[in-house]
Amino acid sequence: MVRVGINGYGTIGKRVADAILKQDDIELVGIVKTKPDYVALQAVKKGLKIYAPDADSAKAFASAGIPVSGTLQDLLGQVDVIVDATPGGVGAKYKPLYEEVGVKAIYQGGEKTHVAEVSFSSLCNYDEAVGRRSVRVVSCNTTGLLRLICTLHNAIGVKSVRATIVRRAADPKEIKRGPVNSINLDPVKLPSHHGEDVKTVLPWLDIITAAVVVPTTLMHVHLVNIKLSRQASIEEVLQALQSTRRIILVDTKRTGIKSTAEVIEAARDAGRPRSDVPELVVFKDSITVNGDEVILFQAVHQESIVVPENIDAIRAVMNIASREDSIRKTDETLGLGKPLW
Amino acid sequence: MVRVGINGYGTIGKRVADAILKQDDIELVGIVKTKPDYVALQAVKKGLKIYAPDADSAKAFASAGIPVSGTLQDLLGQVDVIVDATPGGVGAKYKPLYEEVGVKAIYQGGEKTHVAEVSFSSLCNYDEAVGRRSVRVVSCNTTGLLRLICTLHNAIGVKSVRATIVRRAADPKEIKRGPVNSINLDPVKLPSHHGEDVKTVLPWLDIITAAVVVPTTLMHVHLVNIKLSRQASIEEVLQALQSTRRIILVDTKRTGIKSTAEVIEAARDAGRPRSDVPELVVFKDSITVNGDEVILFQAVHQESIVVPENIDAIRAVMNIASREDSIRKTDETLGLGKPLW
Repeated sequence: MVRVGINGYGTIGKRVADAILKQDDIELVGIVKTKPDYVALQAVKKGLKIYAPDADSAKAFASAGIPVSGTLQDLLGQVDVIVDATPGGVGAKYKPLYEEVGVKAIYQGGEKTHVAEVSFSSLCNYDEAVGRRSVRVVSCNTTGLLRLICTLHNAIGVKSVRATIVRRAADPKEIKRGPVNSINLDPVKLPSHHGEDVKTVLPWLDIITAAVVVPTTLMHVHLVNIKLSRQASIEEVLQALQSTRRIILVDTKRTGIKSTAEVIEAARDAGRPRSDVPELVVFKDSITVNGDEVILFQAVHQESIVVPENIDAIRAVMNIASREDSIRKTDETLGLGKPLW
Repeated sequence: MVRVGINGYGTIGKRVADAILKQDDIELVGIVKTKPDYVALQAVKKGLKIYAPDADSAKAFASAGIPVSGTLQDLLGQVDVIVDATPGGVGAKYKPLYEEVGVKAIYQGGEKTHVAEVSFSSLCNYDEAVGRRSVRVVSCNTTGLLRLICTLHNAIGVKSVRATIVRRAADPKEIKRGPVNSINLDPVKLPSHHGEDVKTVLPWLDIITAAVVVPTTLMHVHLVNIKLSRQASIEEVLQALQSTRRIILVDTKRTGIKSTAEVIEAARDAGRPRSDVPELVVFKDSITVNGDEVILFQAVHQESIVVPENIDAIRAVMNIASREDSIRKTDETLGLGKPLW
């Protein structure tokens, strides 16, 4: 049984915690939370052990009447792996502490590449993460791009990628972000960092991405244009995409779904926890194949898409399962690929 | 003096009216308005002659105390050219009437291609419209794409285009459209009609477009990927784009502008009428040239970008000015290319 702690209990941390609770080979020792708010109260209710980042924060929890089991330092003493789900850039500050204690660390995509020995995407490079001391699970958009690219690359071969990323402005819970009525080029100067981030996993790939931010909270949408390494049929492309539970194909003709709002509504109605859709959502009717060129729309649920990869990363660094076994176990326990209708 | 009437006084009609009032070779005889609302009151105040679509509507105007000069039929009897700025698809219904009376007609991009003898974009095919009985000014997104493509094609040569169009959900005045919180694929099945519409003017072009609709009202944004017919330098591309007043280059390093909201705010502050930006806005810092590949962001002000093309189309069908003379006259009278800062 691998013993794991989670540092940071926000959007990613709370979802990784729930996912770990569903695994039989990974034990959640505790989570680190900075503030004694409603999310902390829910964690207590769920039976999780809460740790504070330091003694001062621990006092704040105590005066709020929320019991803590110690500090981050105490938690680190009891775990094999720490999943760092702190805000972007904060993980790098904790890195020396993790290394000093000698725990393996899983960072998130908000950290710079060099924070970890390897950047990670289950379908692309699980084996490169095996036994490592530190791994960085790439960000939500990069995870979405990599799932598509590696699935097509493994089945057919990919030469180059051009993608436009239409980003959601804020997560549903974020009340201070925008824009409210604007399309922001993010950034103006091309390429956006997403393509560069893809190259941390696939350094050989010719990829250029561009991103805009738009006033919505639900999901990102990508228009992806891929040059395959040979001509292919649409059937081959569909077969490849259907070969993994990490990708859901949405059939618009059958379901009527043609927007992010309808994808999330389907997930709500289907009883998905938090209405999450950790699978990459590819719109089947958008798939266009012209010789060696594939064009399609896909949607990325920014809050949950990296959760399966975090679970796989834990197994990889501890070398307790092969790529295939870890992915199968994660997919089954999290219900990935389960039809939404 | 060419005598012109405008059928429809909405987003496009009222702007074309204002633009005609600034021309010394085109006279605005009157406009057709369907409802006696605030826009009709403003037209009266401006001294425009209002015509009703039919006798019934004329009565509604009369009972609202707004004087009308007659019906559409009366207006058609007094003009050489009718600019049809009715809602998409309605122009086709009026077509038999225009032909019966024998007036030349300028339709908008909301009409199907075959409504007119030729689809029109000033920088691409002015000469094809000379002397025609009917012309269709292509839609806002198509006009934006064509301005860019023809400018680069005339200067360097264009082979193929791939573009992602991030569409505004509604115009500022439209209170019944959405989405409020979603990214809608429009449509899911590729390509979107925009590329097909570009081909009504440039039938030889290999172009595929994809479009999403997002919750904003100000402008559309395009990410355009162009294959030139030869390798080019960024200086050549810049020089081409600077050669026309129909394109504004926004320098983000100098202005800080990196969104549609900031472009429109600059136009408001600069005293542009209605804060309109009829120029295609190309973000200079986004321009990326790799050999024969050009990638850039551009923004399209959907309410006003087709106005200069409507004025040019009038001159073309009446054969009263050459392409160069018409474009120069339109640009000067409408203040196109006038710096916003």
